[in-house]
Amino acid sequence: MTDLLDVIIVGGGFSGLAAAKTLHSQNKKIILLEARSRVGGRTHTRHLPDGKYVDVGGQWIGPTQDRMYELCQEHDVTWYETYNQGKNILDLNKTLRTYTGLIPKMDVRSLINIDFVLKKLDRLAKSIPLDKPWSAANSKTWDSISLEAWVRKHCFTSDCFKIVRAGLETVYACELNEVSMLHALFYIKSGTNLTCLLSIDKGAQQHRIKGGMQTLAEAIATPFLSHIKFDSPVKNILQQDNRVIVSGEGFSYHARNVIIAIPPVLISSIAFTPALPLFKTQLLQKLSMGIVGKVFGIYEKPFWREKGFSGQVVADEHAPFQTFFDSSPADSAYGVLLAFCIADRARNFFSQEEGARKKIALEAFSKYFGKEAATPLHYVDHCWADEAWSRGCYAGLYPTGVWTNFQNTLAKPTDLIHWAGTETSDIWYGYIEGAVRAGERAAREILN
Amino acid sequence: MTDLLDVIIVGGGFSGLAAAKTLHSQNKKIILLEARSRVGGRTHTRHLPDGKYVDVGGQWIGPTQDRMYELCQEHDVTWYETYNQGKNILDLNKTLRTYTGLIPKMDVRSLINIDFVLKKLDRLAKSIPLDKPWSAANSKTWDSISLEAWVRKHCFTSDCFKIVRAGLETVYACELNEVSMLHALFYIKSGTNLTCLLSIDKGAQQHRIKGGMQTLAEAIATPFLSHIKFDSPVKNILQQDNRVIVSGEGFSYHARNVIIAIPPVLISSIAFTPALPLFKTQLLQKLSMGIVGKVFGIYEKPFWREKGFSGQVVADEHAPFQTFFDSSPADSAYGVLLAFCIADRARNFFSQEEGARKKIALEAFSKYFGKEAATPLHYVDHCWADEAWSRGCYAGLYPTGVWTNFQNTLAKPTDLIHWAGTETSDIWYGYIEGAVRAGERAAREILN
Repeated sequence: MTDLLDVIIVGGGFSGLAAAKTLHSQNKKIILLEARSRVGGRTHTRHLPDGKYVDVGGQWIGPTQDRMYELCQEHDVTWYETYNQGKNILDLNKTLRTYTGLIPKMDVRSLINIDFVLKKLDRLAKSIPLDKPWSAANSKTWDSISLEAWVRKHCFTSDCFKIVRAGLETVYACELNEVSMLHALFYIKSGTNLTCLLSIDKGAQQHRIKGGMQTLAEAIATPFLSHIKFDSPVKNILQQDNRVIVSGEGFSYHARNVIIAIPPVLISSIAFTPALPLFKTQLLQKLSMGIVGKVFGIYEKPFWREKGFSGQVVADEHAPFQTFFDSSPADSAYGVLLAFCIADRARNFFSQEEGARKKIALEAFSKYFGKEAATPLHYVDHCWADEAWSRGCYAGLYPTGVWTNFQNTLAKPTDLIHWAGTETSDIWYGYIEGAVRAGERAAREILN
Repeated sequence: MTDLLDVIIVGGGFSGLAAAKTLHSQNKKIILLEARSRVGGRTHTRHLPDGKYVDVGGQWIGPTQDRMYELCQEHDVTWYETYNQGKNILDLNKTLRTYTGLIPKMDVRSLINIDFVLKKLDRLAKSIPLDKPWSAANSKTWDSISLEAWVRKHCFTSDCFKIVRAGLETVYACELNEVSMLHALFYIKSGTNLTCLLSIDKGAQQHRIKGGMQTLAEAIATPFLSHIKFDSPVKNILQQDNRVIVSGEGFSYHARNVIIAIPPVLISSIAFTPALPLFKTQLLQKLSMGIVGKVFGIYEKPFWREKGFSGQVVADEHAPFQTFFDSSPADSAYGVLLAFCIADRARNFFSQEEGARKKIALEAFSKYFGKEAATPLHYVDHCWADEAWSRGCYAGLYPTGVWTNFQNTLAKPTDLIHWAGTETSDIWYGYIEGAVRAGERAAREILN
């Protein structure tokens, strides 16, 4: 137990796996400690008794997520196009309308307004230096207001506000008043631009992984599986005499370095000796996780396609879910409808019992796609805020004042400890691609 | 160990003590579990080897803090007037000026502007319903911006902004962009008004406790001292069969009810079974603690008084500390200068070694009060963010979006668990008075 390892990696999500892979390939002696009994972190492919599956966590990849495509190729994992044909549905002011493409059928003023708001957000985001958002010319101003304050100021019709809000809530996984405008702009730039973040074609939702996202996590883990210790939540990290001792119930490992690759809100549940620097502990109090639940109806076939529907819906605050997608498998052997339930809607929906949730969900599915939707083969929902080892999804949220007051504190190494996790990436922050890049960057810090 | 108690109180700060006192006086079987080896929580009187003392935590009481005066009377604890005579100092743009009263000597535009901003904040605060800040007419707007956004918009001179900022940072213990405008207004109303919060005469800094604030905490605890278990951080709270089992290393107690009276940021370090409701766990991720350090020079006598100084300073961001007070004991047997070091200034100051801190502090003291200040009998500083069982001071901060999205979630009972702590009080939120009222309210919830 007291053999000196090169690196201990805490957390077996994509970031920890990417770090472990990088170090293992350089013949470093590693161990990866994972609190759960599986790898994948905020990605999780749930298999149903009849062999069908749904990705209850992160499920898409898209253009410029280069490391994800490279990892798929390296590990013989294949991807396929997200279904994106037919009519979309807009559920606005309790009325349903159908449309094709990104822009719904609405009054011209609202349409122009939506276009103006999205383009303006993209234009402002371009001015953010990704490696130092706090140095943008207007950073102080943007970091003193929430995204909501800015959006409300620039939406001149209430319909515009409702649509923009549902879209942006799906992007950030929070109410718009829960995130700093500066962070919102950083996030857009980090993921290319807002059109990319909102789109299937040429966007962040373009491709899915055949067999589910966890297939890739497991493929990455395979070469160093014997170095992964599951069900091992870390309780203490002690730096002493140029080594780090990482321990929990029934285990204790020594190493030259440690990489922490867990969500920011979980870091303060580890006791660090010596204590982490003041800026780090203060920052960690400030970040909260977004809240998103995924709600699935699994059907014999994707019946909505025959009716000319894409499976996509955008719904205002009268509906229980913000956005819907066709989430069927590569071969369309069965049909999967996926609804995103986010922020206040998620807190209300997941405060109810499963029976009540199922009823609400199937009513929503039926309202949009017809009575076939009321009788799925399976109903599945999953709220990431309920997971003790994630405490939310997609990612950590920066409220006002944090980027400007704390700058790059989150990613900065602290003596022998290096920091990974998607929240430490300036490219594709909050996405799996960001997690992978952060893990590889933390590994390189140690290798160099 | 498995005797059924009536109530277990977690936390021996003023809120837990007030709850325990209320229940004990009604002959309830209680136990109070405290992580530290002392009572008092965020109040702490530090005794020096020569018998002198300083209050490194909360130290003042003032008008409308009725319960605090009543507790002092009941327990034969006396109070005295905070020293408030002579010239104050303003350190602005690296220039020192002296003045008397609340309003510094400055250009007329800035003076009018300061008056306008403070009065306007007071006027807006009046519109906040203390028991439901989220229902104020402008709550959505105020909860979408930080206090900083509002203050910057209403300060027309940079000198006005600098003074207002130093004053408000001292009130909230954070950078102004770290707190929601709605929370800032609630806080003002909760503590009467801004003049009261900023003042010694007829204000929140009017009186001090003879012998230090902890004298009162200890006096309250005396009658039920045998029911307090020290050095007992709670790890698990299990609700089962109409009872609650509260346990930690080496202890386990059963009771009909529990009162949690610890800072919000510490609550998530307890494992609750069943898990706390989603709204509660989400809210707890959102709150952070303010950061304040107190910096003391202890001298043979309050020598600055003879020179005509009050000991009070307000300093802009060029100086290491925001505000200074004469913090000498009741009989003026020795002199104590106190500087408040808050938010970014605290994070920078307390990131340095003690030797460097002492040098910076004594230079500041000397700059304002002369060379006698350079050679104190003792130098003491204390940062509350470094205390594992507080993690900051004065109180929990609501960033944007929390009051409107979560409403009264923090104080709401969850089955057999009741919630105290100054952050659950709508009167004198963040102050010791609020802590006492919250503890008594939680006890009454159980008694009724």
